[in-house]
Amino acid sequence: MFITFLSDFGLQDDFVGTCHGVIKRIAPEVQIIDITHGIAPQAVMQGALVLRNTLPYMPEGVHLAVVDPGVGGPRRPLALRDRAGRLYVGPDNGLLLPAVEAMGGIEAAHELANPRYAVEPVSRTFHGRDLFAPAAAHLALGVELADVGPPVAPDALVRLDLPEPELGADRIGAVVLDVDRYGNMQLNVTRGELERAGVLPGTRLELEFQGERYYATAVRTFADARPGDIVLYEDSYRNIAVAINRGNAAEMLAARAGHELGIHMVGPTARKVARRGESV
Amino acid sequence: MFITFLSDFGLQDDFVGTCHGVIKRIAPEVQIIDITHGIAPQAVMQGALVLRNTLPYMPEGVHLAVVDPGVGGPRRPLALRDRAGRLYVGPDNGLLLPAVEAMGGIEAAHELANPRYAVEPVSRTFHGRDLFAPAAAHLALGVELADVGPPVAPDALVRLDLPEPELGADRIGAVVLDVDRYGNMQLNVTRGELERAGVLPGTRLELEFQGERYYATAVRTFADARPGDIVLYEDSYRNIAVAINRGNAAEMLAARAGHELGIHMVGPTARKVARRGESV
Amino acid sequence: MFITFLSDFGLQDDFVGTCHGVIKRIAPEVQIIDITHGIAPQAVMQGALVLRNTLPYMPEGVHLAVVDPGVGGPRRPLALRDRAGRLYVGPDNGLLLPAVEAMGGIEAAHELANPRYAVEPVSRTFHGRDLFAPAAAHLALGVELADVGPPVAPDALVRLDLPEPELGADRIGAVVLDVDRYGNMQLNVTRGELERAGVLPGTRLELEFQGERYYATAVRTFADARPGDIVLYEDSYRNIAVAINRGNAAEMLAARAGHELGIHMVGPTARKVARRGESV
Repeated sequence: MFITFLSDFGLQDDFVGTCHGVIKRIAPEVQIIDITHGIAPQAVMQGALVLRNTLPYMPEGVHLAVVDPGVGGPRRPLALRDRAGRLYVGPDNGLLLPAVEAMGGIEAAHELANPRYAVEPVSRTFHGRDLFAPAAAHLALGVELADVGPPVAPDALVRLDLPEPELGADRIGAVVLDVDRYGNMQLNVTRGELERAGVLPGTRLELEFQGERYYATAVRTFADARPGDIVLYEDSYRNIAVAINRGNAAEMLAARAGHELGIHMVGPTARKVARRGESV
Repeated sequence: MFITFLSDFGLQDDFVGTCHGVIKRIAPEVQIIDITHGIAPQAVMQGALVLRNTLPYMPEGVHLAVVDPGVGGPRRPLALRDRAGRLYVGPDNGLLLPAVEAMGGIEAAHELANPRYAVEPVSRTFHGRDLFAPAAAHLALGVELADVGPPVAPDALVRLDLPEPELGADRIGAVVLDVDRYGNMQLNVTRGELERAGVLPGTRLELEFQGERYYATAVRTFADARPGDIVLYEDSYRNIAVAINRGNAAEMLAARAGHELGIHMVGPTARKVARRGESV
Repeated sequence: MFITFLSDFGLQDDFVGTCHGVIKRIAPEVQIIDITHGIAPQAVMQGALVLRNTLPYMPEGVHLAVVDPGVGGPRRPLALRDRAGRLYVGPDNGLLLPAVEAMGGIEAAHELANPRYAVEPVSRTFHGRDLFAPAAAHLALGVELADVGPPVAPDALVRLDLPEPELGADRIGAVVLDVDRYGNMQLNVTRGELERAGVLPGTRLELEFQGERYYATAVRTFADARPGDIVLYEDSYRNIAVAINRGNAAEMLAARAGHELGIHMVGPTARKVARRGESV
């Protein structure tokens, strides 16, 4: 049996290791897969998107996710089941639902309320250790979902507003969803949306970011660009991303998740002078 | 069988992975739980406190810990057993004893001296790989503690001086023990010590840090404070900690482990003007 | 069965966790050992050296390594077997060969081309997930090397030029291969090369770095030096390294992998004035 585990705990502290210990004391034979613990602190939206993107690559099991700025307050601790039988454990703040819905939709939701499946005394600040990890371990051992606590109506669960791109005739208004280790900036735009705006591999564009403009090119793969070029490409989770070939786009642009970015479709004249990632 | 593993090795280099390899070559079926490898480089005190705090959440087994600024010098490599039968492996510099004593006290100590349980040739700089990890793996397989080397009198082991708070009538002199990913600053003060000084949830205080003063409030949980408030709360390991609700206290105060912090009990007048984390 | 895994993916993003998920969906019982994912982004040389240094400490199995700046371009994805029967999976950019050659030499090389052992559709930017991890998992389950794709002549594989030291009569010209968490700087020099230049434990030297000169001492272990001393010592992988005893050499010198460093043998006069790591 598998538990996958995603959080904003980082690996500097003992938070992740302590949750592993709690799980293994309850379910010594369960295998834990750490999806990532590098979600930015308290970034529920980023955690929700990464969980949704990565679950198709994970074995079935219990999917534990903890990004929980409301810990200790009134937000509910949850366990959910989707229509394919996968189980989810985490806070009721929108973190789990994009993944659940991408995997087929929610079938049942229960609030974690049974002290039998918690580590007592439950602290006010570390529900990962005291509520979520032990509940995930017991569910992995076969405890019934209905045993963890009372049902919650799926409609009553907190949902996130995922940012939608503004799709104009000659401009797409996008938002940076995430920045990865290589400095690649994932946008809330799909290849289909770019193509409907006439952007195909090879098309020259202008990016508008923090008041500056930059030339860029749509490419299929980094190998189609020269070192130093700013490129737009479809990343491995099928979002459009901005990168600098063999460089670090986010560092050069000082970009972070949440920043807005405009993609401008440019005419033949502008295209003629476009060169390697120069500021216009 | 479990080996838990704590160190200051970080995860940038191969130190942790190489120790895992050494363990798995000797004991392929043992499960390794990485408590954390984010202890600050050579911070023996911090490592000792984190080990002590986290062991109650770990399954029983062999507890391997390596924070070892004296590697290659005369400090002894050790294996210990506590009265509950847990085993410990690490350097004789005080790292292990706070955990051993919290788990019931030391029963036996032996120096690692049997070359049969080392990876030869033993290097002068990486005893984690060459002495400690292989000894932990052999102990996990059932090797007798007395086989690893000669006994050491428990009284002869190196002990740390854990910093004690100064408990005055209207001031508690504390030390920052640790700073976590969220910027929360763990102090060497317990809730009982605060309560005996008259500090209860809701009490307003002044914090004195690096020559500046800040208003703060004692709370039970972050949800009792407004965003931006400086709060004192009991953390999940039952130490008092300083935080900024939905912010980063250590970053704002430029705080690090080892810094001193004064907690001042303030009168009704001072209390009236206290507001959200403003410097006084 | 074991898969060891080395990459430049870091642990901030989900890249490593997603590859674990892909492996576990195919081969739930395989054990994965993460050697490190902290190789600097796209640093093929560093990855190759760390893989070569650490494999002797790993159990036999499939050795997966991904540092792949040419992903999506014409570089071949490979699976190799060495003469001892170990298997290797990674890109054809020189990353694997130093390890393969240190373990006894290459016996067979095949290009990954069989879609049966890939995760379809194969993205253009994340071959770790879509090609390398699934191939490693299938090989760990016993798939024949010849099944993954057509053979490649070992002579046709890309090789790295490992930097050689310049060995002069009174100067050794070295290159920094790697900088670790403690700030220790690994050089492309062996103890034998130092000894042939007359440098023995206790010998005083001058280091030339970025236009400055620094006194240093050759030592056997940190315990032979005073805190603050700059020392040269043989590290645990049998390279000569530069360190500051209980300090951080790379931070003090602003050193990074790839930097050149001169080791000057100094006469008896210079030796007399040499003191603790002072700039000359």
